[in-house]
Amino acid sequence: MKFARYGAPGQERPALIDAGGQLRDLANVVQDIHPRMLDDASLAYIRGLDPESLPLVEGRPRLGPCVAGVGKFIGVGLNYSDHAAEANLPIPDEPILFSKAISCIAGPDDPIELPRGSKRTDWEVELGVVMARTAKNVTEANALAHVAGYCTLNDVSEREYQLEGSGQWLKGKSHDSFGPIGPWLVTRDEVADPQSLALWLDLNGERRQSGTTADMIFNVAFLVAYISRFMTLKAGDIIATGTPSGVGMGATPPRFLGLGDRLSLEVEGLGVQTHLVTAGD
Amino acid sequence: MKFARYGAPGQERPALIDAGGQLRDLANVVQDIHPRMLDDASLAYIRGLDPESLPLVEGRPRLGPCVAGVGKFIGVGLNYSDHAAEANLPIPDEPILFSKAISCIAGPDDPIELPRGSKRTDWEVELGVVMARTAKNVTEANALAHVAGYCTLNDVSEREYQLEGSGQWLKGKSHDSFGPIGPWLVTRDEVADPQSLALWLDLNGERRQSGTTADMIFNVAFLVAYISRFMTLKAGDIIATGTPSGVGMGATPPRFLGLGDRLSLEVEGLGVQTHLVTAGD
Repeated sequence: MKFARYGAPGQERPALIDAGGQLRDLANVVQDIHPRMLDDASLAYIRGLDPESLPLVEGRPRLGPCVAGVGKFIGVGLNYSDHAAEANLPIPDEPILFSKAISCIAGPDDPIELPRGSKRTDWEVELGVVMARTAKNVTEANALAHVAGYCTLNDVSEREYQLEGSGQWLKGKSHDSFGPIGPWLVTRDEVADPQSLALWLDLNGERRQSGTTADMIFNVAFLVAYISRFMTLKAGDIIATGTPSGVGMGATPPRFLGLGDRLSLEVEGLGVQTHLVTAGD
Repeated sequence: MKFARYGAPGQERPALIDAGGQLRDLANVVQDIHPRMLDDASLAYIRGLDPESLPLVEGRPRLGPCVAGVGKFIGVGLNYSDHAAEANLPIPDEPILFSKAISCIAGPDDPIELPRGSKRTDWEVELGVVMARTAKNVTEANALAHVAGYCTLNDVSEREYQLEGSGQWLKGKSHDSFGPIGPWLVTRDEVADPQSLALWLDLNGERRQSGTTADMIFNVAFLVAYISRFMTLKAGDIIATGTPSGVGMGATPPRFLGLGDRLSLEVEGLGVQTHLVTAGD
């Protein structure tokens, strides 16, 4: 199944995408696309419904973040060797973990706000992983059973805040609008292999990133198991699994986002995001 | 006012502390001590109640985290110069920001769980700041008006996970039980000056940390304003403002937590925490 949330920011309603690609309202079935409906039993119940019995959503409403109530937003740094090379950083021996403030979560077509005075705001197309249930010290073999599904994710990053001055990446990863997720949460059963998905990103119509999740250094199952040793993952937590090469920081010369730039990006099967770059308030 | 939450984990009820230090149940007044009741108007309403009209809580129930629904748990690194010196790290030019996973939040007297195989779990008594409302690009002069109150906080840290191997402090700051907050959320009006509070920590009855918030490199108002440039703070977000010297990592020889150790710690006026160190599951 593909879930989405539609409507004005903060007032989104739950929906699923029917076989024809149309939004079907789920508000009479679930309160929201949120942590309490991501378990296998709830998903099985919804899978048993006839999508045609659900109200068709007219028009083209704004889509919100594809899941609400996210508790933790964990990023994995330098998880593609070509990206580590362009960042002039060594391939890590173990996953680098950082976090994005959950207040940065945005819809898949929302504008990306440049922070005041920012000169080095950059893009990163990534496979997003949404947790279904509590995972603590889980094994790699059992890890994917704790995953609800996947989404397209843009790990927007201000490189000066991330990498210069006094440390920790959090500063550069957390500005409002820096975490668009969606358009859809695609349930695990519809993603045959999370390690064979193409992913790409265009800036103003020009291809900048083009990769495959097959090139991850640490795969999704390893990451879930690894993270669960350091903190307990819960339903609705999101993992941003890293980006392939082609970010603005790695270009010669570097190319960062400016007002009016347009991004589009996709992870295969998980839907396209589009963003206009605007001035932050 | 002093707020607390009491009862079994996940089932806590809201309470306030009356003039005699006793718990008065607030469940008929507010759903919980949570972000939606931290604004000035809600606090003024509760301040107008007669505590003696509220049900007295009998016995000595467990206390939970003093605020529920925390969205972000932001830490400030090396914010006391004596602690930077003992950590052999330079005094930062700007605040170092990191985050703790919200799943680490615990009650003020809950056990501290050692992660499996951990050899370097350490303590940090800190002043915790709880936000009252949204703060984005606020000025230092206006920053404290966005604060609901303060609490005692133990920023428990596994130093190997934090500082060794592949980077970012998140790994060492986030294990379950590593973020006890409370016993009380003390509202801002009862803390005349957040920069003149003594804070101390004892390990097995021996004083290990003894400092004052007057020695912070970056004070609370500066921190709130600074963080709000990088991410939007929201009601219920918590800032851990750094620890003075005396952590286990800084001792000669270093002294880390082991099974059966007991910690007690306090920030002046904000109440005492006590913890038994146990084995994590």
